[in-house]
Amino acid sequence: MSAPTRVVSTVGPVLIIGSGLLGASLGLALRAGGVRVYLEDASPTSLRLASDVGAGVAFGDAIDEAGVAYADAGTDAPGYEAPRIVVVATPPDVADRVIVDSLLRFPGAIVTDVASVKDAVVADVLATLEERGLEDAACRYVGSHPMAGRERSGAGAADADLFYGRPWVIVAHETTWPRALLAARALATDVGAVPLEMNAGTHDHAVALVSHVPQLVSSMLAARLVDAPAQALGLAGQGLRDTARIAASDPRLWTAILAGNAGPVASILRELRADLDDLLHHLDAAAELGPLRGGSVGAINRVMTAGNQGVARIPGKHGGAPSRYREVEVLIPDEPGALGRLFSELGEASINIEDLVLEHSAGAQAGVARVMIDPAVADRCAAGLQERGWRLITH
Amino acid sequence: MSAPTRVVSTVGPVLIIGSGLLGASLGLALRAGGVRVYLEDASPTSLRLASDVGAGVAFGDAIDEAGVAYADAGTDAPGYEAPRIVVVATPPDVADRVIVDSLLRFPGAIVTDVASVKDAVVADVLATLEERGLEDAACRYVGSHPMAGRERSGAGAADADLFYGRPWVIVAHETTWPRALLAARALATDVGAVPLEMNAGTHDHAVALVSHVPQLVSSMLAARLVDAPAQALGLAGQGLRDTARIAASDPRLWTAILAGNAGPVASILRELRADLDDLLHHLDAAAELGPLRGGSVGAINRVMTAGNQGVARIPGKHGGAPSRYREVEVLIPDEPGALGRLFSELGEASINIEDLVLEHSAGAQAGVARVMIDPAVADRCAAGLQERGWRLITH
Repeated sequence: MSAPTRVVSTVGPVLIIGSGLLGASLGLALRAGGVRVYLEDASPTSLRLASDVGAGVAFGDAIDEAGVAYADAGTDAPGYEAPRIVVVATPPDVADRVIVDSLLRFPGAIVTDVASVKDAVVADVLATLEERGLEDAACRYVGSHPMAGRERSGAGAADADLFYGRPWVIVAHETTWPRALLAARALATDVGAVPLEMNAGTHDHAVALVSHVPQLVSSMLAARLVDAPAQALGLAGQGLRDTARIAASDPRLWTAILAGNAGPVASILRELRADLDDLLHHLDAAAELGPLRGGSVGAINRVMTAGNQGVARIPGKHGGAPSRYREVEVLIPDEPGALGRLFSELGEASINIEDLVLEHSAGAQAGVARVMIDPAVADRCAAGLQERGWRLITH
Repeated sequence: MSAPTRVVSTVGPVLIIGSGLLGASLGLALRAGGVRVYLEDASPTSLRLASDVGAGVAFGDAIDEAGVAYADAGTDAPGYEAPRIVVVATPPDVADRVIVDSLLRFPGAIVTDVASVKDAVVADVLATLEERGLEDAACRYVGSHPMAGRERSGAGAADADLFYGRPWVIVAHETTWPRALLAARALATDVGAVPLEMNAGTHDHAVALVSHVPQLVSSMLAARLVDAPAQALGLAGQGLRDTARIAASDPRLWTAILAGNAGPVASILRELRADLDDLLHHLDAAAELGPLRGGSVGAINRVMTAGNQGVARIPGKHGGAPSRYREVEVLIPDEPGALGRLFSELGEASINIEDLVLEHSAGAQAGVARVMIDPAVADRCAAGLQERGWRLITH
């Protein structure tokens, strides 16, 4: 396998304002396709780091080299070409201001941003333009939300493949030009993302549901462990590990995101609280009267059943049904190369692994690999593994 | 790799009452060590299935063969030996009654159970014995909770390795004999589990925290997806998938478990609701006044920070610190054998994989493997993979 040559349809130069993780990753990805990239950042250090990792050329330097003063930068200066696309990749709380500035500074450019909350940004941009009598510029603005976060931040963590296979939501408003929409779509596909179009409100409610509320629920669950006895934590299994995993996310970044989408997040959390209140009422009755009284059996069953129905709606790999594959569970001894040997042997038998989950418990010297494979080869796979001495957990 | 010979210290016969997943798996595991196992079940079909999969001999048959009537079964009947250990593996709502019966039926036996909630069971057993003036029998009872559930149930899903590496909590009460405690400990280690001793209240609070509350939180989160637009679900990433995974658990089984531990579960959920109420109050203010007002920034930051602290306390693999390994992220193309090739190549380089997470997005034709390895070989691993043409996400 070798890295494919990127063939891009985006025509540069692209100016990326904000050279953190997303901005610098976008710069790397576009430059891999030969697109000319300028970078700007309020922090000279961040800007230098991003240009040093190869994400693009500092915009000020580009202008200096072309021998024009920053304020006079125009398309006719020698060696300088004005950006055709501006991507605002600043923190979300300043995005609207920078978008408006960019529309005015570069009257020939399409402007987009990468803020993870869209309704407030779009509304603020349109309101500011209207106040200043500049409504005509609005047609060149289109919102974006590449859903490609990670735990680390800054240009030092930048990667040209950050957007690979991730959804990239494109949010057009009423007067967005089709040309602006197409430019955003090209940008998304050029960096390997999957473009999806939505309006701002739909987007914000969707990310509240699939990202912001799960984040807060995971954090509130993990918060219960802060004062827990170590002995209790020793009983933790894969269920707790999975449910609490994203509680490790960056508080600073998430606080800005969540505060910016407070309305949709609160409305979903309020539904959850209604379920929680009902459940608590019945658990209290059960604790007082015994498990078979107080209606707790019915109330708990309702929560569990609704959970079954909800989780079944999450699309699986490649958007297919979650149950498309069959699972083979294999005991993995804790010795060097054990997992590698398992996969070599599956590879030798030409069995493709569609998905994989490893399970461990505290104190255990071994684990279980849950290997998802094509149902058509499942029996052959299980038989082959047993022949070679692997211990399967069979069903 | 070949299956190790089990060397056991448990002296049989062991009578297992209740031949579902846990009972039948325990039977298989003990028989693999040469222990004589009798089975009993209220359902003749379940009993036959369990004995057919090799979990043990139906107790009635054993007595018939020995030529003694069930009611007269004694240690001196030819070919029959009374059980030295009785394991009650019935549903939790009848466990207390079956434990008391067993103490009376087999006056020479140690009796334990596998119910996942302990306080109510222990209290009911002791109260019933006292009522009937049989307090002396209590010394032969010790509670167990092997933490080895799975999604499927019944003897058809039984596995001798079900308990391998899992915690097995042992709950002694005030008059439990040391001999009974030792028998339970031997049983746990004989089937590969890790024995841990706790009192009933500590156990019930611990499982509420690490298992029951995460289950309900995951279910209540997933319940939000029942009426969600398909477009929103298309944005789902690994965060939602992990947080909602256990929402797929069996409602019938969990309803019985949760109703039996209503008190501790409610007390933890009530703490969570206090956090949720505070958060909702501030989110509402932010939605009304704007993200930087209404105190939401501070409130959200508190939730996120507490989540960070809580999740950091969950022990990692082998009970070590979660950050013991370094992560290498590799892009996996969606072609047959890609993952297998990755692991073969790591195996050839003698690099052991400590843990692994596969990430996919809906609509993506590829994934990312997050491979956890020993920090000492991380650089060599990354360099070797890149040399062979793998695309890494570097930090």
